[in-house]
Amino acid sequence: MSDSESASLPFRHVAVIGLGLLGSSVARAARACLPGIVITGYDADPAVRDRARAIGLADTIANAAGEAVRGADLVVLCVPVGAMGTAARELAADLSLAAIVSDVGSSKASVAAALGAALPGHRIIPAHPVAGTEQSGPDAGFATLFRNRWCIVTPPADVDAADLARLVAFWEAFGARVETMDAEHHDLVLAVTSHLPHLIAYTIVGTASDLERVTQSEVIKYSAGGFRDFTRIAASDPTMWRDVFLNNRDAVLDMLGRFNRDLAELEAAIRAGDGEQLFDHFTRTRAIRRSIIEMGQDDARPDFGRADHSRAGKETVSG
Amino acid sequence: MSDSESASLPFRHVAVIGLGLLGSSVARAARACLPGIVITGYDADPAVRDRARAIGLADTIANAAGEAVRGADLVVLCVPVGAMGTAARELAADLSLAAIVSDVGSSKASVAAALGAALPGHRIIPAHPVAGTEQSGPDAGFATLFRNRWCIVTPPADVDAADLARLVAFWEAFGARVETMDAEHHDLVLAVTSHLPHLIAYTIVGTASDLERVTQSEVIKYSAGGFRDFTRIAASDPTMWRDVFLNNRDAVLDMLGRFNRDLAELEAAIRAGDGEQLFDHFTRTRAIRRSIIEMGQDDARPDFGRADHSRAGKETVSG
Repeated sequence: MSDSESASLPFRHVAVIGLGLLGSSVARAARACLPGIVITGYDADPAVRDRARAIGLADTIANAAGEAVRGADLVVLCVPVGAMGTAARELAADLSLAAIVSDVGSSKASVAAALGAALPGHRIIPAHPVAGTEQSGPDAGFATLFRNRWCIVTPPADVDAADLARLVAFWEAFGARVETMDAEHHDLVLAVTSHLPHLIAYTIVGTASDLERVTQSEVIKYSAGGFRDFTRIAASDPTMWRDVFLNNRDAVLDMLGRFNRDLAELEAAIRAGDGEQLFDHFTRTRAIRRSIIEMGQDDARPDFGRADHSRAGKETVSG
Repeated sequence: MSDSESASLPFRHVAVIGLGLLGSSVARAARACLPGIVITGYDADPAVRDRARAIGLADTIANAAGEAVRGADLVVLCVPVGAMGTAARELAADLSLAAIVSDVGSSKASVAAALGAALPGHRIIPAHPVAGTEQSGPDAGFATLFRNRWCIVTPPADVDAADLARLVAFWEAFGARVETMDAEHHDLVLAVTSHLPHLIAYTIVGTASDLERVTQSEVIKYSAGGFRDFTRIAASDPTMWRDVFLNNRDAVLDMLGRFNRDLAELEAAIRAGDGEQLFDHFTRTRAIRRSIIEMGQDDARPDFGRADHSRAGKETVSG
């Protein structure tokens, strides 16, 4: 590594703790986007460490969290939000006071509290890249996961401005767009854009699995009517999502209450045969998808561009 | 057209009534998969007829429904389920008694009743291809929409076996897999695999649009956390979906009742901090997605193979 390369890096050495979908994506993105950075990794599961070594995820995969963070100037905790405190305590003794400690957890107030308690006096700046897939484990990650996605950083009030700038530069190097806000607001926003959608998807997939008069085979066969969309989200990692609901309980219950009231209103309209109310509601919800596509936050192709909807057939019309 | 080609066609002349996403896809698939078949089309909206002519959707786009069905041996009604009766009455006088009348509606008991009342003595075989996208209109259709999708046919008890075989052959020519069942069972199955998912998606997108403490701009920016998946379904045609809920009310309310009970259970688990119950539920729902992918009913790639999740980044790991 030349001096000029190293000078432009926001960090010299990143330690990634937890090597699932997110952790392995952080490691891959660092390798791809920050040439010259030293990458060490650790996972509590020996099988995941073995796999991470086999696929060359990092320069070194350590057998202990402390070993992984020794000499690191950035530590990114990529474990379920309920495991943050334990993971932090495990590496505390080996962590430099100069190192920045961050994470990728989906709830932020509880993570800030857990890290603050485990690592007093350390430079903690929680973060949440709003990106992912329904897959899990070290093989599921990829370097472009964060490209064109938002990363929300929730710095404490007394954050060092230079520390914050370095963490922002780290995420921007991966192609992410960074926004800062306080942890409580993050938790409210994500309750509606992520946590409630997951709760509802998990629920309906469970409902469909438990019917007597409709078989599971029928549910699967005719899932292209809409149901299959929900099964993707409901295939997400159970441990991660259990922890999200336990750690962002109040905001999730608040959003769920609003959803329940809105659903009861539509139910009443169906029961009453009130076509006008249904039509008005369904028209209103159309616009928001256009905005999401215009903001580059979803694939503009019909049906997310799924493979089985090849547009090849269109040519036959004029041909 | 040679005699041998024409002999292998299940129908000589198909009339497509309603030229939106489904109707235009039927016309395109007929053009692509049944070479030699005569295709006529009609839509109640003059602007849609003009557009259909401009893109050459059919051999003839008629200015009246009766004109479109004259001489046809198959008529496929591709209008919202609430408009089936009116559309059928409009063409009744010009319809041959030898013609088979079918449709593509998402609810079947109400359509069978409406067509039966409008076309007494005619050969009515309702059908429902379980396929679609969130887009609407004559430009949204494509010839491969039905490929590898299921088409459910709900024949009356006294159906002529040869008629049924011809309709099955028509859909199979498009690459669809055909299943027959009674209309009531169809309506129950689709209530869970299609109608309830749409109702829930419409609800949550409405809920997210109406918040005070979270702005619409935040909902859009952070939609990749899961919410954006729901916006696709909630962008579906409002008229079509209003009619579905009004015409399959009992089955939808039945499934909605079950969903509400299951959601209340998960809500109670979150409130009580019962991580074990959440984990068990989230583990159970994972398996069904694997089955859907194994059955070829969804894209196996992570995140439906969305374009912004290019897997190109993977190569950087070993490189």
